[in-house]
Amino acid sequence: MDAYLKLEKQFKRLASYQHLAAICGWDQAAMMPDGGNEARANAMSDLAVLCHETLTAPEVGEWIRSAEAQIEALSDEQKVSLREIKRHWAHATVLPSDLVEAKSQAGSKCEHQWRAQRKENDWEGFAPNLKKVVELARIEADKRAQNTGLSPYNAMLDLYEPGMTTEKLDALFNDLKSWLPELTQQIIEKQKSHAIQQPQGPFSTELQASLGRKFMEILDFDFNHGRLDVSVHPFCGGVPEDVRITTRYDEEDFTSAIMGVIHETGHARYEQGLPKALAGLPSAEARSMGIHESQSLFFEMQIARSPEFVAHVASMAAEEFGRQDDSAFSLDNMNALYKRVQPGYIRVDADEVTYPAHIILRYEIERGLIEGTIEVDDIPALWNQKMQAYLGLSTEGNFTNGCMQDIHWTDGSFGYFPSYTLGAMYAAQFMHAMRKDVDVDACIRNLDMKPISAWLEENIWSKGSTLSTEELVIQATGEPLNPEYFKQHLISRYLND
Amino acid sequence: MDAYLKLEKQFKRLASYQHLAAICGWDQAAMMPDGGNEARANAMSDLAVLCHETLTAPEVGEWIRSAEAQIEALSDEQKVSLREIKRHWAHATVLPSDLVEAKSQAGSKCEHQWRAQRKENDWEGFAPNLKKVVELARIEADKRAQNTGLSPYNAMLDLYEPGMTTEKLDALFNDLKSWLPELTQQIIEKQKSHAIQQPQGPFSTELQASLGRKFMEILDFDFNHGRLDVSVHPFCGGVPEDVRITTRYDEEDFTSAIMGVIHETGHARYEQGLPKALAGLPSAEARSMGIHESQSLFFEMQIARSPEFVAHVASMAAEEFGRQDDSAFSLDNMNALYKRVQPGYIRVDADEVTYPAHIILRYEIERGLIEGTIEVDDIPALWNQKMQAYLGLSTEGNFTNGCMQDIHWTDGSFGYFPSYTLGAMYAAQFMHAMRKDVDVDACIRNLDMKPISAWLEENIWSKGSTLSTEELVIQATGEPLNPEYFKQHLISRYLND
Repeated sequence: MDAYLKLEKQFKRLASYQHLAAICGWDQAAMMPDGGNEARANAMSDLAVLCHETLTAPEVGEWIRSAEAQIEALSDEQKVSLREIKRHWAHATVLPSDLVEAKSQAGSKCEHQWRAQRKENDWEGFAPNLKKVVELARIEADKRAQNTGLSPYNAMLDLYEPGMTTEKLDALFNDLKSWLPELTQQIIEKQKSHAIQQPQGPFSTELQASLGRKFMEILDFDFNHGRLDVSVHPFCGGVPEDVRITTRYDEEDFTSAIMGVIHETGHARYEQGLPKALAGLPSAEARSMGIHESQSLFFEMQIARSPEFVAHVASMAAEEFGRQDDSAFSLDNMNALYKRVQPGYIRVDADEVTYPAHIILRYEIERGLIEGTIEVDDIPALWNQKMQAYLGLSTEGNFTNGCMQDIHWTDGSFGYFPSYTLGAMYAAQFMHAMRKDVDVDACIRNLDMKPISAWLEENIWSKGSTLSTEELVIQATGEPLNPEYFKQHLISRYLND
Repeated sequence: MDAYLKLEKQFKRLASYQHLAAICGWDQAAMMPDGGNEARANAMSDLAVLCHETLTAPEVGEWIRSAEAQIEALSDEQKVSLREIKRHWAHATVLPSDLVEAKSQAGSKCEHQWRAQRKENDWEGFAPNLKKVVELARIEADKRAQNTGLSPYNAMLDLYEPGMTTEKLDALFNDLKSWLPELTQQIIEKQKSHAIQQPQGPFSTELQASLGRKFMEILDFDFNHGRLDVSVHPFCGGVPEDVRITTRYDEEDFTSAIMGVIHETGHARYEQGLPKALAGLPSAEARSMGIHESQSLFFEMQIARSPEFVAHVASMAAEEFGRQDDSAFSLDNMNALYKRVQPGYIRVDADEVTYPAHIILRYEIERGLIEGTIEVDDIPALWNQKMQAYLGLSTEGNFTNGCMQDIHWTDGSFGYFPSYTLGAMYAAQFMHAMRKDVDVDACIRNLDMKPISAWLEENIWSKGSTLSTEELVIQATGEPLNPEYFKQHLISRYLND
């Protein structure tokens, strides 16, 4: 018991340090002038070392062993916290410090040079850096595999989506691959006849931000425990007690910033709804990257892009920008605009129908990279071949908008990409389950989000990491992840509308 | 040499932690929603403990002893850094941890309750808390005295103004007391005939902020290494590489926010000009609170309230607010407004002529409190008596705007108050010296601040803490602090204008 309480104290201290890292990280992206960067990078690096030392201190391992030896003295809640404490500790201690150091250096170099190389379509310059990153990631995956008994790629997946495996992913993604290409073609065919008007700017940043805040209020974002600001790359940061979301504004197009704000609001409400009684403990954290993404996609795709919600977007935007007489703000046009399906090169710009193709492609390649069946030199050809097969687009010679478009691999985050599409599937399944208890369409029509929030809070947010992802999904929906709900969602929204 | 390098490494790590504390402290005051306060307070408290542990770790004392034993191996610059490292370490280690803990608790309680008690004029409620703070401050002062060989109050002064003593302060303040009351009366008499028009608002916060930024640019604030934001209590925070200043806006009165921004810009330029080669070491820090205040007062009182600068304020404000035809924005009226001398109850609202009386009163009382010649119960009567004597105002029964107006004593910061008036005197002396080399009036007329900045940078900012305060003043001006320059400044600005 004593050992367990020492662990709680140590992890709450770690949470304090991570709180400071989160706020200063937000500041770096949203507030800091450029000239502050070098000093900030030093300070953040010293803090990262401190966090690592706090997590991996020799006594932590001893306390875990002692606490496990007296596990019957712990309450159920404490047992769960101990399990999650051990998971964080194991992930942090499994790698020898020289590998951590090598990974950090190779990743920093690769990411830093990638920023310029991507703009210059410079695969030749990028490939050697990526090879080094992949070489170290393979060693990392092997170490993690030895420690967990998982396969190397599964051990990497476990960092972002605990419990997820290639076996499950293959089943899920093969299911998608069996119907999504044809469905996509049908939707594109159907939409050919739609004429879409893009609302013409300028739309001032101030009015866009004001409109965004109105939607955050409608979606019950707690402004006493969070803020909205601006950054180049939108994100959800801060801490559950003080969630910082950001967006970026394009004065020619308000439609993407609004959905961006709503997307981050989904992440934020998850954070704001995490279990307060466990605050500071790993068991209070978000369950996985996939579940996190499911909440942002639930808010953006399931709620905000529904015709019922788009009606509010159309009328509130028309009012905010004084465009009540502009036909581009009509419900029909706004609906068509928010439902447009169009294969494209860029993952982050993709609609929800074509998005999974981008993910499956990356999953197949990164898994091969870790398993040693694909080499870095194979990537451009494979990318082109899969883009042709899945989306009908050639990326031959186009590295900028092909295999060099994402930051994830540059620092070795292999295993992260599947979370995006898992999130989309979880979100559809949650919506299907929620509809059994909540008249979702009426809630949206009346802008009464309380029943929707209450369902998410009870079934997802308040669980933190106390359940496994699979337990969470089964308890919330009655079954494990099932891609059928995502399929039905797409058919219903894009074909049967 | 080895020991010295270990000290440098340890103190740079400490500087990283303090960097995060500074940014998160700024965030708390300028950005954080209220609901984030409890989690932030916990995080900041854990960080404060970490900083204290880093500064007082047993090996630090050993490294200092080793480095001193081989002092001849160090360069002159390293010797200076070692001296300042030792000063910080000695201040931090002299108090036993139970006293630090008791001080922190008594100070937090006194300050927290004071916020409500001040509003309610509740001296009876406040006095017992303050007695506890004073009791602990006396023990602290005795400990510091034993450790330094200074008298107890001098040992407290040394925390804020190293090298300053009651002997020097008595000489300086007795000088002021010998001529300032009569001068004040003469000025008030002279100003009786001035009719002053207060510009009538509203003046939008946005325009005030825009005007403030224009003055910051004129005063060469480096926006690549800093920001201006809003907080309830204006301050200068952040780190030298990224200085965060704040102000508050009153939509009925733009005149005080402008001078507030210029005041904080003075603090900020000092921070931005500290020696970069020593960054992260105590020798790179600002020399003292008095020198820090001298820079803010140099910018506000010596430069910005000069008739030459007020001419720019008048015309730029008239333009910003579209009041070119408003007689309240005339040069004569703006000058009269910025030179108005009026005894008042509140220190922070005082003009530069009556300000020293507020400080001398506090100095005399706090010194007596520490030396044991004054008790907490004596404060209200002494306050009233001295306010009557120095400024002709009665504070009998008025605690809110009398002895309960300041935060400083509530957490035991005895020895801080003199810095304000030392700063005013240093600023006048620096200006006198600068005028030998720089045509200050012409610079201000032409808004060419480079020669002024260059003088301050060379003589003050770039010195950091490498010189003692007295050495700094003598090298910059040719003599130790001499109140004559402050006297001449007041006579020239307020009587001979």
